[in-house]
Amino acid sequence: MTDVAVIGASMTQFGNREGEWIRDLLAEAGQACLADATVSPDDVEHLYVSNMASGEFEGQTGVMNALAHDMGVLPAYAQRVDQTSASGGAGIYAAWQSIASGASDLTLLVGGEKMTHKTTGEATDVIASITHPAEYKHGLTLPSFAGLTARHYLEKFDAPREALARVAVKNHENGTRNPHAQFRKTVDMETVLDSPMVADPLRLYDFCPITDGSAAMLFCPEELAREYTDEYATVAGVAGATDTHVVHERADPTHMGAVAESGREAFEMADADPEDVDVAELHDMFTILELLQMEALGFAEQGEAWKRVEAGETAIDGDLPINTSGGLKSKGHPLGASGVAQGVEIYEQLVGEAGDRQVDAELGLACNVGGFGNCVTTTLMEVA
Amino acid sequence: MTDVAVIGASMTQFGNREGEWIRDLLAEAGQACLADATVSPDDVEHLYVSNMASGEFEGQTGVMNALAHDMGVLPAYAQRVDQTSASGGAGIYAAWQSIASGASDLTLLVGGEKMTHKTTGEATDVIASITHPAEYKHGLTLPSFAGLTARHYLEKFDAPREALARVAVKNHENGTRNPHAQFRKTVDMETVLDSPMVADPLRLYDFCPITDGSAAMLFCPEELAREYTDEYATVAGVAGATDTHVVHERADPTHMGAVAESGREAFEMADADPEDVDVAELHDMFTILELLQMEALGFAEQGEAWKRVEAGETAIDGDLPINTSGGLKSKGHPLGASGVAQGVEIYEQLVGEAGDRQVDAELGLACNVGGFGNCVTTTLMEVA
Repeated sequence: MTDVAVIGASMTQFGNREGEWIRDLLAEAGQACLADATVSPDDVEHLYVSNMASGEFEGQTGVMNALAHDMGVLPAYAQRVDQTSASGGAGIYAAWQSIASGASDLTLLVGGEKMTHKTTGEATDVIASITHPAEYKHGLTLPSFAGLTARHYLEKFDAPREALARVAVKNHENGTRNPHAQFRKTVDMETVLDSPMVADPLRLYDFCPITDGSAAMLFCPEELAREYTDEYATVAGVAGATDTHVVHERADPTHMGAVAESGREAFEMADADPEDVDVAELHDMFTILELLQMEALGFAEQGEAWKRVEAGETAIDGDLPINTSGGLKSKGHPLGASGVAQGVEIYEQLVGEAGDRQVDAELGLACNVGGFGNCVTTTLMEVA
Repeated sequence: MTDVAVIGASMTQFGNREGEWIRDLLAEAGQACLADATVSPDDVEHLYVSNMASGEFEGQTGVMNALAHDMGVLPAYAQRVDQTSASGGAGIYAAWQSIASGASDLTLLVGGEKMTHKTTGEATDVIASITHPAEYKHGLTLPSFAGLTARHYLEKFDAPREALARVAVKNHENGTRNPHAQFRKTVDMETVLDSPMVADPLRLYDFCPITDGSAAMLFCPEELAREYTDEYATVAGVAGATDTHVVHERADPTHMGAVAESGREAFEMADADPEDVDVAELHDMFTILELLQMEALGFAEQGEAWKRVEAGETAIDGDLPINTSGGLKSKGHPLGASGVAQGVEIYEQLVGEAGDRQVDAELGLACNVGGFGNCVTTTLMEVA
C-alpha cells in the first residue's frame, strides 16, 4: 500500500455567494489548491468532487465533468462522491484510495455546495430527503433529532444546558480568526441562551447556518511529495462506517456508533490513540454533536465531554483544541465542502499555515458526519 | 497492488417496475449478488451505490445509507458513486480501488435507477441536466447530439443508414435470449427504418428506452477468492477518462476521446490488445454510439466499424460478439445500473453462466459512457 501525502489545500470564502454557482465555487477552490502546490492542471490524474445535491439545488448534474472541463484537467478521470453531508470526508477516503491503489499519482479533491439561493424551507426539504421516509413523515427532521438527543443527554448525564452554549461560544470565537468563515463575530453565553427556540432545548445559536462554499485538497504518493513541496502532511489513518438509516432503531441515541467505528479503524490504521491527537475538527452541525463525537472518538468518556468543554480544554489554547477553524457553526456548512474544509484546517495546522488560529500540532483528526450520524468518515493526518 | 477478483454478480428484471422504489430495486440486486456468492451480509466491508439521480427522480437521497441499513451490512462503509449515466462503470472503478488499496477485503457494488414513474419529458429534463447550460438552452440535448453526430458519420465515412439499424436489430436479437431484458422481442430492419423520427437521421428504434432496474457485483482480493468460490473472474484492467463538457468544443465529433483514453489505459494495465477481446458490452444508448466506441477502443479503424456490423462480425456468433446482453437498446438503461449490468454480463460470459447467450470468452470488455462521451470508464475482465 502506497503512503499518501497531502501537498496542497484551499478554501473559498464561505457564506452567501450570491451570483455565483456551484461550478464557479468548485473552480475557485480547485484552482487555488493547484496554485497552493504550484501544480499544473495537466498533471492531475484523478478529480473527485464531493457534492450532495447540485441537481436538487441548481438543476445542474455532472458537476465533476463540468469542473474537469473548466479547470482544464482533461482527460483526467472525474467522479462525484456523495455521502450526504459527509461527502467531503468520503472524498478524502476516495482520494486516498485512488493514490494507495496506484490508480493515480496526483488526485485533486474539490468539495462544494451552493445553497443560499434557496429559501430555508426549500434547503431543509433537500436535506431532509436524507432521512428515512417513515421518520420524516412524522416530522423527524435532523434538527428535531438533535433536540430530542440533546434533551436526553442533558438529563441522562446531568449536564448543564450551558455546556451546549459553550460549544457555540468557543467556535464563534475561533471563527473570528478565520478569514474564510461565514460568521466572524463572537457571541456570548447570554446571546446563545436567549436566541429563538428551534428544537427544545436547542436554540438558533446551537445550529450551523446555510452556506455556499468550496474547499480543495491535493494528494500524491508520499514518495513523490518532495518533488512538489517541502512542507506536507500524510494521511496516517482513514476509515468510514455506517449506522442505521432509521435513527430510532439505535439502542442508545447518545452514542454515535458510526463515529466510534470509523474512529476505531482510523486510529488502528495510524497506530495511534485519542490521547495522541493535538487538534481536531468535529462535525458541529448542532452543538450537541460536538460532545457526542468527542465521546465516540475517545476524547472523553460517555457523558463526560461537556466537562472538558466547560473546563476550556477544547478551546484554542486548551489541551485539545477542537474546531479551530470555527467549525460548521461559525465557518458555515456547505454540505459537500464541509468535510474537505475540515481536512484543509487540519492540513494548515500541521504545516504551520493556520495564521491567527495556529496551534502546536503533529497529529490532527477530522470527523465528517452525514445525516444524524448515518454515515461517517474519520481521517487522521500527521506532519511528514 | 492487490489483484482484484469478481466473485458474484446479479441483476434484477429490467423494465417498468411499478410500485417498487429505488431502495427496493437496490436491495433486490444486492441480496441476490450475496446469495450468488454465498456470502453473508456481515462480511461486507465497503458498499458502493452507483446512482445518478434518486433525489431528482424520487426525492430520496442517502440511498447508500438506506441500502446498508436494508441489507444488514452495517457498520460497512457506504458511499454513492455518481458519474451520470456512467455511474456503474465508475462504481466498478471505485470497488476495484477499495480492494486494490487494501481498504476493504469484500466490496459490494450495487447500481440502480428508478425512472419510469416520471413522464418521458420529466426524465429527459433530469438527464439533460448533465449537459452544459450553454448548449442545453439551444435545445442541444443528448438525442440531438446523437442525431447530428450520426448524420456527420454517415456522410463523412460514406456509411449506409442501414448500418445503424443493424445495431438495433442485432441487440434486440440478443435481448430475446436475456431473461432480465426490458424488451425480449426481435425487430426487423424495416421496423427500425420506418419507426418515428426523433433526431434525423435517428428514429425511435435507434434509442434505448427509459428503464427501472438494478445490478450488483461482488469484489475481493484474488488471494481470498477461492475461499468463496471456484469460479471467478479478475479485473485485468480498469481506467476512466473525461472529455469536454461542452460537446461542440471537440475537434472531431465522430471520435470519442474519453473512450479512447480510458480504453488505452485499461489495455495497458491488462497488457492486452483490442484483438485479444472475446466479448464486449458497449454503451449503445444510441445506435451510433456502438460504432463510435468500437472505433475509439480499437475494434475497427475510424469510419470502418459499420463494415464489421454489416458483415455480422459483432453478432453473437461472430468474431467479436458485442452486447450479447441485448445492450442498453434492448436490455434497458436504468442510468446508475447500466455500467454494473455490463460488468454482470461480462462476468457471466467469463464464468460460463450466460445461458442462451453464452459465447466462448476468456477476456471481456465493458465500456460505460456518461453524457455524450463526457465521462467514460472501461473495464477488462478475464477468466481466473
